[in-house]
Amino acid sequence: MATGQTDPQRRERILAATLDHIAAEGVAGVSHRKIATRAGVPLGSMTYHFAGIDDLLHEAFTRFADHVVTVFAQHLDGVESPEQVREALIDLVHAISDGPQRDLVLAQELYTLAARRPEYRALTQTWMARSRHILERHFDAATARQLDALIEGLTLHRALDPAPHDRALTTEAIRRITAA
Amino acid sequence: MATGQTDPQRRERILAATLDHIAAEGVAGVSHRKIATRAGVPLGSMTYHFAGIDDLLHEAFTRFADHVVTVFAQHLDGVESPEQVREALIDLVHAISDGPQRDLVLAQELYTLAARRPEYRALTQTWMARSRHILERHFDAATARQLDALIEGLTLHRALDPAPHDRALTTEAIRRITAA
Repeated sequence: MATGQTDPQRRERILAATLDHIAAEGVAGVSHRKIATRAGVPLGSMTYHFAGIDDLLHEAFTRFADHVVTVFAQHLDGVESPEQVREALIDLVHAISDGPQRDLVLAQELYTLAARRPEYRALTQTWMARSRHILERHFDAATARQLDALIEGLTLHRALDPAPHDRALTTEAIRRITAA
Repeated sequence: MATGQTDPQRRERILAATLDHIAAEGVAGVSHRKIATRAGVPLGSMTYHFAGIDDLLHEAFTRFADHVVTVFAQHLDGVESPEQVREALIDLVHAISDGPQRDLVLAQELYTLAARRPEYRALTQTWMARSRHILERHFDAATARQLDALIEGLTLHRALDPAPHDRALTTEAIRRITAA
């Protein structure tokens, strides 16, 4: 097994520490020194593995988007009928918005970064394209795009509302947008 | 006209400077010193007018949410028929997502803050309740809630997508969700 700077686990550990740091304190606080400390790696590892903070953020958020798309795909794995797909999507909206805040915070941090700096929109574009691609197994392209936006809005509003809407409302919204 | 620390314009100037600072650099960088410098007020004004950073952020984001709800209300002012309302909402989604990035960044900064710290969710809850209240003039409560989430998702996805969806897709999505 490789060790030291060429150890691929070290690079992954830095990326995991970066996401932990962003979840806790936000993108603004990311520095080579803070991440190296959190990851338990020498400071030199940071510049060995990453060209700079933007490279680090880009790679860390790529890992995060991969994780979210994987969760999305797993929720729809094995479902066949339109009714099963709708049920799986309703489950997904409620699981994410009722779930641990870490993913919610990380998603918002990425959106904020992409809102402020258009060069990060390749990340959000790829993420959206992959989600829509999964939905296109079950719906036409236009419906997939509308549904992806609806899921985003329902999840965000549930997560940020101290009195979140119930499952019946999610069900009805998804039924309406997919009733082509 | 009042002057000095009791000058109400000074308080408003501090809040405007706070939003400018958040739009440029994010919530994480807000400090009494930076905001005082940006607003051109003595440092003592900050503690005179605000109990602390959380009070400052709360008041600044309250101003921002007031502004966004006012824009929302103006877009729907004077429209009567369901068809006119739908057209106004389509205009709104495209105006916001094609518009200056400042409001988009500030909204995402508030969402990120509320995602990380539940005590800020009173702000997002009030904002959502006011938007839905405006929509309830034209739609039943459940439709208003679904529509509010859809508008959020469509606007966010258009704003963050380098190849944003066209007006026809927004039109179709809003038609579907309001076709009760």
